[in-house]
Amino acid sequence: MRKRPIATNDPHIQALAGIVGETAILYRKEDLIAYDCDGFTVHRHLPRAVVFPNSTEEVAAIVNYCHKHDLPFLARGAGTGLSGGAIPLNGEVVISLTRMKRLLHVDLENRRAVVEPGFVNLKLTNSVAHRGYYYAPDPSSQYCCTIGGNVAENAGGAHCLKYGVTTSHILGLEVVLPTGEVIEIGGNGVLDPPGYDLLGLLTGSEGTLGIVTKITVRLLKNPEAKQTVLAYFDEVEDASQTVSDIISAGIVPAALEMMDQTAIEAVEAAAFPVGHPKDIAALLLIEVDGISAGIDEQINDILTICRRHRVREVKVAQSEEERARWWANRKTGFGAMGAISPDYLVQDGVIPRSRLPEVLREIAAISRRYGLRIANIFHAGDGNLHPLVLFDASKPGETERALAAGSECLKACAAVGGSITGEHGVGIEKKEEMRFIFTDEEILAQTAIRDVFNPKNLLNAGKLFPTPGRCVETKQAPLPVK
Amino acid sequence: MRKRPIATNDPHIQALAGIVGETAILYRKEDLIAYDCDGFTVHRHLPRAVVFPNSTEEVAAIVNYCHKHDLPFLARGAGTGLSGGAIPLNGEVVISLTRMKRLLHVDLENRRAVVEPGFVNLKLTNSVAHRGYYYAPDPSSQYCCTIGGNVAENAGGAHCLKYGVTTSHILGLEVVLPTGEVIEIGGNGVLDPPGYDLLGLLTGSEGTLGIVTKITVRLLKNPEAKQTVLAYFDEVEDASQTVSDIISAGIVPAALEMMDQTAIEAVEAAAFPVGHPKDIAALLLIEVDGISAGIDEQINDILTICRRHRVREVKVAQSEEERARWWANRKTGFGAMGAISPDYLVQDGVIPRSRLPEVLREIAAISRRYGLRIANIFHAGDGNLHPLVLFDASKPGETERALAAGSECLKACAAVGGSITGEHGVGIEKKEEMRFIFTDEEILAQTAIRDVFNPKNLLNAGKLFPTPGRCVETKQAPLPVK
Repeated sequence: MRKRPIATNDPHIQALAGIVGETAILYRKEDLIAYDCDGFTVHRHLPRAVVFPNSTEEVAAIVNYCHKHDLPFLARGAGTGLSGGAIPLNGEVVISLTRMKRLLHVDLENRRAVVEPGFVNLKLTNSVAHRGYYYAPDPSSQYCCTIGGNVAENAGGAHCLKYGVTTSHILGLEVVLPTGEVIEIGGNGVLDPPGYDLLGLLTGSEGTLGIVTKITVRLLKNPEAKQTVLAYFDEVEDASQTVSDIISAGIVPAALEMMDQTAIEAVEAAAFPVGHPKDIAALLLIEVDGISAGIDEQINDILTICRRHRVREVKVAQSEEERARWWANRKTGFGAMGAISPDYLVQDGVIPRSRLPEVLREIAAISRRYGLRIANIFHAGDGNLHPLVLFDASKPGETERALAAGSECLKACAAVGGSITGEHGVGIEKKEEMRFIFTDEEILAQTAIRDVFNPKNLLNAGKLFPTPGRCVETKQAPLPVK
Repeated sequence: MRKRPIATNDPHIQALAGIVGETAILYRKEDLIAYDCDGFTVHRHLPRAVVFPNSTEEVAAIVNYCHKHDLPFLARGAGTGLSGGAIPLNGEVVISLTRMKRLLHVDLENRRAVVEPGFVNLKLTNSVAHRGYYYAPDPSSQYCCTIGGNVAENAGGAHCLKYGVTTSHILGLEVVLPTGEVIEIGGNGVLDPPGYDLLGLLTGSEGTLGIVTKITVRLLKNPEAKQTVLAYFDEVEDASQTVSDIISAGIVPAALEMMDQTAIEAVEAAAFPVGHPKDIAALLLIEVDGISAGIDEQINDILTICRRHRVREVKVAQSEEERARWWANRKTGFGAMGAISPDYLVQDGVIPRSRLPEVLREIAAISRRYGLRIANIFHAGDGNLHPLVLFDASKPGETERALAAGSECLKACAAVGGSITGEHGVGIEKKEEMRFIFTDEEILAQTAIRDVFNPKNLLNAGKLFPTPGRCVETKQAPLPVK
């Protein structure tokens, strides 16, 4: 950021510059444009300003100022969120945490580390790998997304099938509440800490309950061994049944990913092709890890199950380099859509694993109905679907059609007893879809909690819950009394 | 319960009998005495009445009635809780859930089951064992405690080291809120459900936020193989270092339990002796499970680590019968204290594993200072200590001395960055000790949440948080605004 003297009459911007310094604030329109959306690009709104605090004290001072002057505000990490959680819908003061990116403490004996919220996910693993440890949650954006953002969204990743999503790896938080107080929660690695589970409540609250300024995470020991299988199928049903049978056999793969034909077309046309045949209906990428002794037997069981379901070809990675190529191909899959479509919208639904074939058929029907291609790249092992609706925003009406098709995919997930988000969050994108799974009372139980933490609703308002008026959202009332 | 016509002028009891029927209510003093405490026997208070609803509708009707007429009320499962969570401090209407004990649904394909809250923990495993599944959380009271009570307390157990405490196994809840509404949370097995984590918030809320009437739990596939090791040490330090080294080696045992000399004296004098030498300083009970292929190698590694730390004798269970005997000896350990002491008080602290030797030395010093023997039986693998303070309640002042010694043990845990409860909850017993680890702001953040759910504080008041007046507890205010 170039140093430029503050040239504005807005007293709030002058006051905020007084807190963080004039080299740590953006307020000119041309600078603000980069902050008008996150990974959900359908809505764009300019913030009032973007501030870059360098400490918990500065964050608290900014929040105190906003609270006192009724200025809407929100926190932002790397801006990779896919549901619009960091979009300044109400012209918020955006508190960017990218300068708070220190690795504060590593305690391998008790397997934990303390990081600031702007610390990039993958850097943590890179920092402890030489000692034989890693940080498990691995969203596909892990090379650039921040751990603070991961906490806000309760981020998942391919390896969450075995190791659980972010909330399973967070041991403690320092949080600036929307009223400016700083509290600490957990941090000592207790499985069942006393009092209410504020750690769980804050994790995944999508930036509506507080701003995380310090995070204690669990580190895991690197597994002794790892094996990765790639399997090509001529029928989606066969791939789906293979997923079911692997889980039923009592195998818990570290990851169990599926891509369909459209997704394969995209990844092969993009930056990390690995030579998948383009005429297959689906592929599975299956990884097992653990102590060496059991691995070969598990791999043999997996190969047997694949063959039982008419796999066309199945292979085990012969080197770490080959394994890394397969994963790069998978992990850049969303972006790869750019190679076959001007725009795409990724959805994030969850279904009971046993309903996989039927929901995939329903998604194919939605695709035909809307005349839009839908690719599927997803965490099959835990039933977390990612339909990618391909569209062209320059064609009139196509964005709206894509959004409607995405929403129908979620409805199909909810209809089989599933959910409308597995790991991307609700944000702006899916707040109306919350009605697919929650009653008014259930939404009220949640907004009542938000109002306790966030009494003026200045922090990240208009996210996560349906718009008032349709569901009776109320600001002050506790739960309705009969 | 014998059928007796309602013979009281108390209109509330008549009204409650109208809801549940006159054979499902107790109100005479001689009947109420059995409900004046739970597993924490230091405080005793008579309830106003005990009702035995048979359905969610009846629970909701009772709660609605109490809410309308400002009657304090609380829920009770099997009454095995160790921190006094089910004690009717304020003459509550006790809602016993022991008649709601149906197993409603088993869905092995998606690995879940739905139970009513009065369903006994061990019965669930017994119900699905023949199909190769089990329910993981295994508190020592599992043969009689209820899953509803486990949810309230977020119960742990010996095998939680590998598999996590109750909260990791709860997929959904039906809850009657303190105002009488019924809400459903989760239930579809989603790793990261949308909205706030109400499931986590309710689990472990010690009966202060709502009454659980239906529970969807995760079932696990039985491990293919299991091996159990018993190791005797002449020095506590050697046993502690063995624990550390096993974990550092990357082995995740299913369970890793320790008993000290006093504990061994008690279990050998009680119902399930197994012939432990009485002159050893400590024993470890170590279990590994998983696929067969890796087990022998892990056991060999464990034996090597034990020998490196001067183990006197170490053996592997040669049969399921031998393994079961070792576990019965361990799991009845608390009750076994009765064989060597008229009374005992069990504490429940957590420490970072690396501080084990120093905290055990501190507990020994507390024992000498108070002139009371303290036995230790505990989950060493996750640093969850259970000091058992032995005393004689018939001797004047000894109960108070035992309570003070127990509290000092918790202070010692908090002092090394640990916690005041690992799995037994706070209840009445440890509410003042909450100050060892929480600031006033942090306690307020929690009581503010309670007040949202429980606006009149009729449900299980006086539990979990310190008494008002010392920490400024307030009823209506949201978080303090600076």
